[in-house]
Amino acid sequence: MIGDLTLSNASRIVFLIMDGVGDIPNPDHAYMTPLEAARKPNMDRLAVERSVLGRMIPVDVGITPGSGPGHLSLFGYDPLKVEIGRGILEVLGLNMEIEENDVAARGNFCTMKDDTVTDRRAGRIATAETARLCGKIRDAIPAVDGVKVIIEPGKSHRFAILFRGEGLEGELEDADPHKDNKAYVYVRTKTDAAARTADVLNSFIRKVAELLKDEPVANGILLRGFSKKPDIQPFPEKYKMDALAITTYPMYRGIAKVLGMKAGKEPKSDQEMIQIMKEQWDKYHFFFLHIKETDVAGEDGNFDEKVKAIEHVDTIIPDLLSANPQVLVITGDHSTPCPLKGHSWHPVPMLLMTGTGERDSLPFHEKNCLRGSVGTIYSRELMSLALAHAAKLDKYGA
Amino acid sequence: MIGDLTLSNASRIVFLIMDGVGDIPNPDHAYMTPLEAARKPNMDRLAVERSVLGRMIPVDVGITPGSGPGHLSLFGYDPLKVEIGRGILEVLGLNMEIEENDVAARGNFCTMKDDTVTDRRAGRIATAETARLCGKIRDAIPAVDGVKVIIEPGKSHRFAILFRGEGLEGELEDADPHKDNKAYVYVRTKTDAAARTADVLNSFIRKVAELLKDEPVANGILLRGFSKKPDIQPFPEKYKMDALAITTYPMYRGIAKVLGMKAGKEPKSDQEMIQIMKEQWDKYHFFFLHIKETDVAGEDGNFDEKVKAIEHVDTIIPDLLSANPQVLVITGDHSTPCPLKGHSWHPVPMLLMTGTGERDSLPFHEKNCLRGSVGTIYSRELMSLALAHAAKLDKYGA
Repeated sequence: MIGDLTLSNASRIVFLIMDGVGDIPNPDHAYMTPLEAARKPNMDRLAVERSVLGRMIPVDVGITPGSGPGHLSLFGYDPLKVEIGRGILEVLGLNMEIEENDVAARGNFCTMKDDTVTDRRAGRIATAETARLCGKIRDAIPAVDGVKVIIEPGKSHRFAILFRGEGLEGELEDADPHKDNKAYVYVRTKTDAAARTADVLNSFIRKVAELLKDEPVANGILLRGFSKKPDIQPFPEKYKMDALAITTYPMYRGIAKVLGMKAGKEPKSDQEMIQIMKEQWDKYHFFFLHIKETDVAGEDGNFDEKVKAIEHVDTIIPDLLSANPQVLVITGDHSTPCPLKGHSWHPVPMLLMTGTGERDSLPFHEKNCLRGSVGTIYSRELMSLALAHAAKLDKYGA
Repeated sequence: MIGDLTLSNASRIVFLIMDGVGDIPNPDHAYMTPLEAARKPNMDRLAVERSVLGRMIPVDVGITPGSGPGHLSLFGYDPLKVEIGRGILEVLGLNMEIEENDVAARGNFCTMKDDTVTDRRAGRIATAETARLCGKIRDAIPAVDGVKVIIEPGKSHRFAILFRGEGLEGELEDADPHKDNKAYVYVRTKTDAAARTADVLNSFIRKVAELLKDEPVANGILLRGFSKKPDIQPFPEKYKMDALAITTYPMYRGIAKVLGMKAGKEPKSDQEMIQIMKEQWDKYHFFFLHIKETDVAGEDGNFDEKVKAIEHVDTIIPDLLSANPQVLVITGDHSTPCPLKGHSWHPVPMLLMTGTGERDSLPFHEKNCLRGSVGTIYSRELMSLALAHAAKLDKYGA
């Protein structure tokens, strides 16, 4: 429906996403949240004077989202309908360029004895060793049956791989017995259309086994999470806005690219992020700025670091506002509460700076967001709200 | 589901709809809303002593509804599934009677030069001139190919038209090039079933062109928004209640009639509205009272007028209550915030007077409605809630 109502105008919308910003009352910190404890005069002035507050459920009540679903929701895609496959996410995380019909997978080096996988992680070999082995494969097997192979090392025993060629399909079962000391399992197809792809990949797996047969530990590979780019309406088409993603971490840049956003230069700091945004201000109508530090601190369970990360983001707000966006949303893709040291299902606090004149007159943190006039919505409804406040949505019905 | 659970009893439900009543904190009025600023002792006593409060989302988060979707929701119809076409709304707005298989359209007089539409609005001719031209058509072309033509002038160059006959269908594309200085576009059919209807309408358009060929300015017509009455379950059947609509504006009376409500006498004042309701009290179990002034003031951006309209409605509350309804809902079909001078997506404040004994003990305005025990619901859920409070809904399941 939104697509039919979307209007083009000169207004700019900025999403400032503090990854995992949402938190819960921390028992060791007087039951405050990091957002509540942080000294953030710029955000709070913005909240009190020019914003409405609310909370967002990333996927569904009680559901803890990964980064893929978390961001899909923010951009108005239903994460229960659209999926970014594991292989695609891995490839994006390594900053690799994906083309339309590539099949992506994530891989492990493993230890084989005859036909048995004795160690699915090849003794967790060092990253440098994985890089050497990937180089060996790259040199020896640049293509299989006319299908180009693109491989990049990840951390420890992990790598990501792309197969590029005509008519490849991703409906494939993992080449992985999923347990140690089981017989090797080759790629199997889920559909007739993917049968040839399975043959090509199994041929690749055999060539690699032949190539690595004298390696003492890592003498085989497992491939998992086969997937292609999801078939979704690109963001610029869906919302009639060209969009720029500015992120320090490749995976988020990758997700943005899958959605048809352009990826800006990688910023060295939060300050530089705003610089890049301002340089590109005339060319785009939507800006996605991604801050990773809040999530990292949450994952570490480090309350003070999370507070510090928020306080640092606060310092860039005046510069951001000087670009004069019509709508600025400050929120997260999910919560990463310090006491849980990981992603969680908790609703995410959300601030929407608007030009309508309305305001909730409340500083920005979880407890006030619960009282905000936006109420509790789904993250996938945020885009409609942002478009409405930017006067980019036509009336529905006469 | 509601239909299966609905029970008949003697209880009366009244919906007092203040069109566009919802508003936002107005920067020029100490961030108050008109409902907050209005002196409305009767509504507030009712709210504090006998009511629960909540907010309603008319269509969806961020979506600004037109009058059709706004009212369909209030009466429990999903506006994303049921649509009242533009032609039907125009005809209703002119107080014309629609029959089951009529095809309705809205029309413009236009200026033609040969086959080109040189001015789609015929220089915005005066309403009186449009009335004269409609009369001319009415006299000369009462029917085409056995299809009756009913035409009524609107404002300026606009008119509404009904085609009445056997087997007419509304799946038709506009007879309108949608821009000036383009070749005339005749009615085209979207389905095989509507092919004959397209022929009839095009034959009508040609007869009109022949009739008006010597007119200096308005020598042609454009027809748009072809539609029939929506195919929906009538309100009295869905809810086992006969319903009476009492409204000053024809369009709202028309929407009610499309839903199978009866239309009461047109009241000259808010006071008379209650008089009419009381006269008909024994004959109906549901009353839809529509107040337009709140929306008009919102559209004008006139805070003081909106306050005044609300204060005036407040004076009729004691008389309304003297009829002794079991449930009274006071709300709007959408928000029309003064600062935005138009319909908006903002949730609508809602008061439900109940006989259950419960109460939220809060005066009636947007900020309290955010705290009310009903929470934020969709407008299309209101009917269930009203039926429940009127003890007209059976238990679901054993």
